[in-house]
Order: sequence, then C-alpha cells, then structure tokens
Amino acid sequence: MSEVRYAVLRDHLAETWDLVKLGGLAGWDQQTMMPAAAGAVRARQLATVSKVVHERMVSDELGDLLEELRPYEESLDHDSDEASLIRVTRRDRDKELRVPAELREEQTRAGAEAFPVWVEARRTNDFELFRPYLERNVELRRRYASCFEADEPYDALLDDFEQGMKTAEVRKVFARLREGLVPLVAEAAGQDVDDSCLYGHFPVEKQREMQHVLLARFGFREDSWRLDPVAHPFAASFATSDIRMTTRYPEDEMRGVFAAMHEGGHALYEHNVDPALERTPLCRGTSLALHESQSRMFENLVGRSLEWWSWAYPELQGIFPEQFGGVSLEEFHAAINKVQPSLIRIEADEATYSLHIILRFELEQDLIAGTVEPKDLPEIWNERMHEYLGVSVPDDAHGVLQDVHWSRGTIGYFPTYALGNVISVQIWERVLEDVPDLYDHIARGDLGPLRDWLREKLWRHGRKFTPRETLERVVGGGMDPEPYLRYLGTKLGARAA
Amino acid sequence: MSEVRYAVLRDHLAETWDLVKLGGLAGWDQQTMMPAAAGAVRARQLATVSKVVHERMVSDELGDLLEELRPYEESLDHDSDEASLIRVTRRDRDKELRVPAELREEQTRAGAEAFPVWVEARRTNDFELFRPYLERNVELRRRYASCFEADEPYDALLDDFEQGMKTAEVRKVFARLREGLVPLVAEAAGQDVDDSCLYGHFPVEKQREMQHVLLARFGFREDSWRLDPVAHPFAASFATSDIRMTTRYPEDEMRGVFAAMHEGGHALYEHNVDPALERTPLCRGTSLALHESQSRMFENLVGRSLEWWSWAYPELQGIFPEQFGGVSLEEFHAAINKVQPSLIRIEADEATYSLHIILRFELEQDLIAGTVEPKDLPEIWNERMHEYLGVSVPDDAHGVLQDVHWSRGTIGYFPTYALGNVISVQIWERVLEDVPDLYDHIARGDLGPLRDWLREKLWRHGRKFTPRETLERVVGGGMDPEPYLRYLGTKLGARAA
Repeated sequence: MSEVRYAVLRDHLAETWDLVKLGGLAGWDQQTMMPAAAGAVRARQLATVSKVVHERMVSDELGDLLEELRPYEESLDHDSDEASLIRVTRRDRDKELRVPAELREEQTRAGAEAFPVWVEARRTNDFELFRPYLERNVELRRRYASCFEADEPYDALLDDFEQGMKTAEVRKVFARLREGLVPLVAEAAGQDVDDSCLYGHFPVEKQREMQHVLLARFGFREDSWRLDPVAHPFAASFATSDIRMTTRYPEDEMRGVFAAMHEGGHALYEHNVDPALERTPLCRGTSLALHESQSRMFENLVGRSLEWWSWAYPELQGIFPEQFGGVSLEEFHAAINKVQPSLIRIEADEATYSLHIILRFELEQDLIAGTVEPKDLPEIWNERMHEYLGVSVPDDAHGVLQDVHWSRGTIGYFPTYALGNVISVQIWERVLEDVPDLYDHIARGDLGPLRDWLREKLWRHGRKFTPRETLERVVGGGMDPEPYLRYLGTKLGARAA
Repeated sequence: MSEVRYAVLRDHLAETWDLVKLGGLAGWDQQTMMPAAAGAVRARQLATVSKVVHERMVSDELGDLLEELRPYEESLDHDSDEASLIRVTRRDRDKELRVPAELREEQTRAGAEAFPVWVEARRTNDFELFRPYLERNVELRRRYASCFEADEPYDALLDDFEQGMKTAEVRKVFARLREGLVPLVAEAAGQDVDDSCLYGHFPVEKQREMQHVLLARFGFREDSWRLDPVAHPFAASFATSDIRMTTRYPEDEMRGVFAAMHEGGHALYEHNVDPALERTPLCRGTSLALHESQSRMFENLVGRSLEWWSWAYPELQGIFPEQFGGVSLEEFHAAINKVQPSLIRIEADEATYSLHIILRFELEQDLIAGTVEPKDLPEIWNERMHEYLGVSVPDDAHGVLQDVHWSRGTIGYFPTYALGNVISVQIWERVLEDVPDLYDHIARGDLGPLRDWLREKLWRHGRKFTPRETLERVVGGGMDPEPYLRYLGTKLGARAA
C-alpha cells in the first residue's frame, strides 16, 4: 500500500519536474535562440510555469501524500532514493509554504522592474537612478527573510542557495580567507608576468573549434550536450542526457576557453547524476557552492594546470599558430595564471576572485541587517576595494553597479562563488590521495580517473543529501579554507621563487 | 461584475496558452537543437505538458466560468474578441470532455509505439511488420470517432484539423479536382522540360544566404523570427513576435528555397494575428486548410511566379553563378514549374500534389468506415497511383509506407493539404481584384500590398471565427475548386502553347 502511494508521489513529482525543466528550457532559449522581440511574452510564460510549479508544490494533494508517507519514510534507509525523495520534497514544500504568494509576486515584479533600470544606470554610471529600486529590492528581501525563523536574517537568504548553511560559518571561513589572501595577492601582484599572448585577434570559428577540442575530453556521453554562445555564460540541463553549456567568443582575447571549462564542470555534475533520479527534484547538484566547486575545479585546478596544457597547448598552437607559435608552454601557463587585482569580479583571476566575493558578502549582511543603507554603498564599496585589492574605483559602473544580482533582488547568492573555490581544493586533495598519478593522466588529456572519482563520491547523489551531508561524504568533514590557501600559496610562491 | 469574471477567464486561458506554447517550444527544440540522447525524457516532458493543459481545459473551474459568462457572451457582439474567446473556448472544452482520458492516453501510447516500427518497416520495405500497429491505430481512431455525434465517422476526425468541415463537402470538392487534374497532369507530363539546372552542388552556407534573402522580403518585423535546418521543415510560433521557421539545405538540389517560402507563408499568418489576441487560444491560424492556403500561396502563387523571380533570380545567380549563370530566367521558371507525376507526395509538383492527397483521403474514409482493411492497403494504393498519376509503385517504401501520419494515428489531416491549394487560389483571385497591380509589386520584390490585404482580411482574426466563417469573410463564399483548376489550366496550357 505504501509503495502504491509512493508511486503516486513519484509520478506527481515527475510531472512537476517536467514543468520545471520546460521552464528551464524556455530560459535557455531566451538567452541563446529567442528572437529579441519575444522578450515580453517569454517573461509571462516563465512566470506562468513558475506559478503552476508553485501551486503543485503547495497543493493539499502533495501535502496529504507526504503525511501519509511518513511511516513509510521512517521504515526506509535514510540514504535510499525513496526516503531521500520524501525528505527533500517535504523540506522544499515547507519552504514554499512559508512565503505568502503576494510577497513572491511582488519580488518577481520588483526584480523585473529594477533590471532595466540597473542596465541603464550602469550604462550611464548613475547610481542614484538605481538606488530607489535597490532599496525596494532590499526591503522585500528583508520581508522575505522575516518569513523564516533563523539565527540571523541573512541565514534565510543564504538557505535558498546553500541549504542549511549558516551566515556565521561563512563569516568564519571568509575571515580566514581574507586574512590569507590579502597579503598573498599583494605579493603576487608585484610580479611582472607577460600575458600579452592572450590578447590579439581570435576568430570566432577557431575559438569554437578549440573549445570543442577541450570539452570533448571532458567525457560527456555522445549526443548528450551542446555548446552555444551567449552574453553571460551558464550551464543548464533538461535531463541527464540533455546538457546545454554556453560560452563566449570575444574576438580580442582567448579567455573564452576558461568560460567553457567552467561551464563544463557544472555540466559534468548535472550529466552524471544517477539516472534513477531522472525526473525528480533530486536530479541536480545539491547546492550552488558544491556546483561551483566543480566548475572551479575544471576551470582552474584542471584548466589552468601545467599538466592539462602540456597536452592541450599543441592543440591551441595548431589552431592559432600565429598567436602562440612563438610562445612557450611555460610562458603561456604563466600568462593564464597571472594575478592582478582589478575592478571587475567576472574578469578576476583565481587569487583575487574570492576577495571580490567577500566584499559583497559583507555588504549584503549589512544591507539586510539595516546597518548599511543602499545610499551609502558606493562609498563603502570603493573604500573596501582599496583595502582588500589595493585598487581605486574610478566610477560606480566599475564598482557597485557592476553585477546584475542585486537588480534582480538576488541576495545571498554571492558567497557560494567563493565557497566553491574553497571546496574545490578540499575535494582535489582527496582525489589526489586516492589517485596519486592524477596529474599524469591529466597530462595525457585523460580526465577519466578524476571523473570516475567525482561520479562515485559526489555527482551521482544529486540532491539526495544536504550540502553539509554531501561535503561530509566527499571530504570527511566541513568547509575548510586551509587547502585553498595552501594551494594558492604554493602556486604563487612557486612562481615567485 | 461580468467583466471581472471575464478577466478571470482571460487570465486562466493566458496561463493555459503559456503552457501550450512552452510545449510547442519543447517540440521545436526537439527537432532543431536537442541532443539526440534526450529523446526519451523529452517525450515524457511533452506528455506532461499535454496532460496539464488537458486538465486545465476540462477543469470545473473553467466550466463554471464559461457557464457564468453565458449572459455576458450573449450581450456582446459576436465578432468581439471577448465573445469569440468565450465561444471558441466552450467549443474546445466540449471536445476535450467527449473523449475518455484512457482513450486519449492509449492513442498517444499506440502512436509512440507504432512510429519506430513504421521507421523500420519503411527502411526494410516490410508492410507486414507495420500492419498490426496500423490496425491498432485505425481501431483507436474508430473508437475516437464514435465519441462524437456526426453524419459519418470521418467527420469527427476531420473536425480536429478543420473544425466544422464535413466529409461530404470535401468529397465533392475532391471529385471535381480529380476530374480536372487527371487529364491536366497527363497532358502536362508529356511535355519535355529541362530542369537539370536545379540539381548539382549547392553548399549549405550559400543556400542559407539565398533563403534569408527571400525571407527578408516577406516582411517579418525585426528581431521576431529565425530559420533553422531540420529533417522535415515546419513553422512554429511561441508569440506573434517569436516565429520559428525551419527549412532544409540538401546539397544536391536547390529546392530548399521552396520549403523556406512555404514555411514563410505559415509563419506570416501566425506573425500577423492581432496582438490583442496574444496569450489566448485565438492566437493562431483558424485551421490547417486556411494555414496551408497561406503556405501554398507564398510557395507557389508568389514563389513559383515569373514576376517573383524576375527580381529574385539575379540574386540567385549572384549566389550560385556557376549553376545559373548560363540559364535564362525563362528556363529557370519552366524548370521550377515542371510537372512530372512521381511516387512521393512531399516531392510532388504543384499540379500532381493534390492527386496524392485525394488518394489518401479516399483510403482513410474506407479505413474508418471499415470498407477497406489495412491488409488490403498496398494493393489498392498501387492500383490508384496508376489510375490517378500513371505511375507504377515499385515497392511499399515508395508507396503506402511513405508518410509518417498513419504511424502516429493521425487520420483526417491529409485532406487539408489539398484544400489549402484550393483555397489559396480562391483568395489570390480576390487579392487581384482589389490590387490589380499586384504582380508589378511582386516583380519588384515588394510583398507589401499582398501582406496588407491578407493581414486585414485573414491573418489578424486568428482563430476568432470558424474556418467556414473565415473563408466566407475572405472570399465571400465557400470552398470552390474552379479557381485552382483554372489557374493550373492556364499555367500549364500556357506552357504547352
């Protein structure tokens, strides 16, 4: 009998997840394929599918099913797919129920209204234009946070992206990171590395070819993925066999390959979830930080390593002979690892990136707590950029207005980027323990052993376990910034030596 | 008060239509962009969105709204958007309610199972392999037809594609067509037209360029459309500002331009529905025959005319100088209008095409009435192909197995293709009455006056009126095969002379 009711739950969730994925497809299409004039109707279509999904999640039908299945769940092994699906769905539903529909809708509307104003404000370098919209978004996020019981309001926001994570934990990790990174960056930034080979003329077609050469080694199953150019790269999946990576091909530089490898890491995670979880809410990565740990791993730990390029560089030289024919592998490797404090987060190198994030994390907490008001942001932003990165911000377009997130009302998302950096190296150290000759494989362009390890320990579980449980399973403990600081220290120190 | 309830109906239908369009997008993506391995999950996603849409259509909520709005509807002008939306929705809902959910699902399942068998049967020229699946599809369609009250069972099937059309009417039109076409085709087929210029080597990139040159003249609004290659071209729309045409670029011939213009005609109809009908079930062409009248008009009446090519041929010669440099406009025009009876419907010329359809229409009626059984189809097919087109069918792969429709259980669709031919010329004659210098415009590549006429008389109304009402408004009467026969007689007679 319980099995019968479980099957009803499974079918109900499968259909909900089908709708979620169709919404995802419409979002992907919006950024890759959709004719521009269709934007207004598409926004309505996306809002409708979100609404229908929400209605299914808060429905009495689902609530009753979950209640009925309580004894069944308790009879099952915690780690079973069945217990996990019931457990995670109950948690998701409880969160959906906490927030009044009107507040959800107001947030969506406010974000939709603020976004174009932010675009204009950034273009014209006019923070005051954006300020009232930002104030409204912050106020709505405060109200959203108040729907939940938490140690501090920011916890509730963080939870949307990193379920169960506490602000206090992140603060502790980031305090140590900041302490370690600021002197490291200051020292590395004094070094003189020639990265001029990364700039020049890189025709789109050749960039596409190179990115496909690299991604072909990532080991996606045949006929399961595609790669398309967009303004702001992302990865999406609509089934484990339907992986959509996006990238960019700016013609004046070749850093698009790192965007492609970054999205490739995200994509491998989604691609390798256990197919038994297909068409369920468990069929995706467990959190943004865990996800980012994978994108950062493939972008940086693999993708900026000397070993990876020892096989890939001849390919690159073959495709861009004029650009790289006279540049040695070592010179190229130094160029792609150059540390240089800069103004823009999305252009930051591996070492300075986390400092951009820490700055945002601090400001977000202050905004939600009310200890900083939006009007004060530009001044504080510019002061801290100088303090952490030693750079002077010339204008708000290159400062507080640079990121899209706040215009959409997205607060609590930023920290997951830096946590991904931290976790990526924690995992990497574990892989190296189990696969001592990992770098020999990478030097042959063979990611098989890495992939096998990650699939077994992380990817296949999808969202069955919380981020904390998942990390515990993969690295045997919680978040720890020391491996990341050691890694950067060794890497940058080695270069200095 | 009524206005308030109407607004509720409008919102309910807008959301339903959003879901319909997201399903449409997923179908488009399946054929254009989707990695092949994703097919199985995509099929489930499409089934889910169909189910959710069906549930919304048969819901008591919608039923109650429609009942409440009866007095409001009666107080409104029949032609108003509001009255039309209520009227058409009531009709749609009544149809949805007639068919038991189990029968719908069994039909979908049977079609999904039969399709791959048909693919294999066609590949191996093995009708007997396909026969039991076809028998099941026919049996299910008979059961489906019995859910409705109609003069004859085939009426119910036809109604799905051509609402309100009666089989008896189609029979009458087709009898006259057959009578007129068989001798016309026999005579034209005796003529010796050299169409060798249409075969050779046509690189994909150059075909793409040419197709864009032609479609640019169709007058789509900026940033509202795209064109992608597929195996079997179609047109879709997800908003009036989101038009997706598809085409093909076979490298050994240049007939892809006609596929593009055909889909361009469908696309213009969807693109020019009154934006006030956006996000409602009225926001699409009123029937398949009316839709096909537009695709055939732009493919044939415009796209195979001497006037159209008098501006477009220099463009074609510029893009394919080796192929067409030594071919005169008149020779090219004769080649693209060559009449030659052949085995395959989708490769048929303008004159023989309707005979392929008449054959299928006759067999479908017999199958549904039970006067012909699937096992007898190959023999009858081959006999009639000889009778109507004078060709001998070498095997079933080039005969009864050639079309996908019956494998999906789609019966009642074929006649709309030929009705589209008939209607296209009825409309064309009306346009010429109102725009006597139409061909002068076309000869300059200017489709503006044609577009303006069609938008005003046909396109903008979308699905507000039934096919019969719509045709009455556009041509002032019902279906009449004489204009089409006159047109072909003049065209082929002129060539013979």
